[in-house]
Amino acid sequence: MVIAIDMMGGDFAPLEAVNGVIEYIAEGHSADTLLLVGDKPAIEQHFKERGHSSGSIKIVHSDQVIGMHEHPTKALKEKQQSSIAIGFGLLASGKVDAFISAGNTGAMLVGTLFTIKALEGVIRPTISTIIPKENGGTGLLLDVGLNADCKPEQLNQFAVMGSVYAQLILGIDRPAVGLINVGEEEGKGNLLAQATYPLLKENKHIHFIGNIEGRDILTGKADVMVCEGFTGNILLKFAETIYDISEKRGLNDEYFKRFNFENYGGTPILGVAKPVVIGHGISKAKAFRNMIGVARKMIETGVLDKMKEDLQ
Amino acid sequence: MVIAIDMMGGDFAPLEAVNGVIEYIAEGHSADTLLLVGDKPAIEQHFKERGHSSGSIKIVHSDQVIGMHEHPTKALKEKQQSSIAIGFGLLASGKVDAFISAGNTGAMLVGTLFTIKALEGVIRPTISTIIPKENGGTGLLLDVGLNADCKPEQLNQFAVMGSVYAQLILGIDRPAVGLINVGEEEGKGNLLAQATYPLLKENKHIHFIGNIEGRDILTGKADVMVCEGFTGNILLKFAETIYDISEKRGLNDEYFKRFNFENYGGTPILGVAKPVVIGHGISKAKAFRNMIGVARKMIETGVLDKMKEDLQ
Repeated sequence: MVIAIDMMGGDFAPLEAVNGVIEYIAEGHSADTLLLVGDKPAIEQHFKERGHSSGSIKIVHSDQVIGMHEHPTKALKEKQQSSIAIGFGLLASGKVDAFISAGNTGAMLVGTLFTIKALEGVIRPTISTIIPKENGGTGLLLDVGLNADCKPEQLNQFAVMGSVYAQLILGIDRPAVGLINVGEEEGKGNLLAQATYPLLKENKHIHFIGNIEGRDILTGKADVMVCEGFTGNILLKFAETIYDISEKRGLNDEYFKRFNFENYGGTPILGVAKPVVIGHGISKAKAFRNMIGVARKMIETGVLDKMKEDLQ
Repeated sequence: MVIAIDMMGGDFAPLEAVNGVIEYIAEGHSADTLLLVGDKPAIEQHFKERGHSSGSIKIVHSDQVIGMHEHPTKALKEKQQSSIAIGFGLLASGKVDAFISAGNTGAMLVGTLFTIKALEGVIRPTISTIIPKENGGTGLLLDVGLNADCKPEQLNQFAVMGSVYAQLILGIDRPAVGLINVGEEEGKGNLLAQATYPLLKENKHIHFIGNIEGRDILTGKADVMVCEGFTGNILLKFAETIYDISEKRGLNDEYFKRFNFENYGGTPILGVAKPVVIGHGISKAKAFRNMIGVARKMIETGVLDKMKEDLQ
């Protein structure tokens, strides 16, 4: 297993990426499972400053960086020596088994959609977010922005992919799937939700519990919460402000602290044939360590094979 | 001016409705402007217990009540002597100028749509909610559930109605209108948002500031926040849980306390020719007092005439 890491992505690159790699190795993982992509001299210098020899770590040099605010498609096309472009090249050619980056999100999405095949049968890949539950658990909300308009069949696939991910990566046994809606009863909602309900109800690969409302997002009612990317994105960005506000107001509340989404170490793109994990731009060492961990777990558990199976 | 009040609506009826009326009158408003609808002996008894003579207050007796969980259409049809049915009869016939209730929300919506005409040119009425802003101000979010599927023209009308309401009732000078979306730039979003943006941009009756994201809902960026009722309803119900959770966790935070939506005294149905205000089922005296105040302000400011004008 080899996981490629974009060392130049994120606001604190490559320093915090290096720190994350050091933390990951300190957890007992072999450096042989990693392949770092980025400015080789700078990366080696950071390792040296932290008192680590980078001799045993494989580094692929890249002398271009895609900035956080560059136009994704344009940048990927023009900067073929960027760490993101090189990373996708390695992944697509099978030289590595997963690719993670805290860099330009748009470029990561475009790179994934254009270089990595969709899982067999998947209409469109999706991105999700962890939702901290009030009872201490975690839920999964998807889609959170990759698909602003969806068909019922897509939501049905999100439910399956989310379920498999919740089971194998989040460790939730028989995850309860809820359809985000404006009312509890079947038949409620907009046309999309109305048409999606029967598909979820008849889907034997998921444990569908029915509609859930806005008030249920933070309760333990559903583990996997499904909606199109418009609603999901707005919910996620709204939830992020809860953390910001409670910090600003000095509330120091353990639960609201869990709305600091950078803790969760990135989100995978689900529905593509290889693991790609995207981190927040503000990722620090812990986030990088967690992102590598998510990628490793995705490879070890065979989560993508299970998704493919359940999507049939 | 006469405002009809459903005294039998809400979890604490008629006691808290009576208390609300007493508070409203204590503020210096004439009892002549009110017409109470409900169980006359029970209402009189409550006034008496509070040491108030109900002699000067007009009461229309009603011997039926629509329960909070009854089927709206069925209940309205079968219970023509209910306080809600009588209230709409009085409003439709012009005997009163506004109607307020904290009763069955569905029955209030159905009653409004079936007995009160839409404002000239309005495609569909809408409901909104107050959003407490972090800077101490208040915003208006609409639609919050009456229209789960919308056309761009409807969102354009919500923007106008919300603007006029924000100006005349909330006292916000030149309210900034934002289109709730998944990105800031024009062209972002789902098909609905993409098609709505140019309409808002060219609408001379509003001060459109562009797209706003989930992270902007609680900031001062926009005063009037427009979306279809699916997203709006989920956002509202999600926001309500912030209050519940912060109370449960004993945070005692002044800002999060403002997410206790029962403080705002009900929401008007916008886009119909007469003022109808719906309150939370859990409304207490303060909420009733505020609801009467909203109805009075709607009549006094001529908010509906201004909407009609700006919708042309």
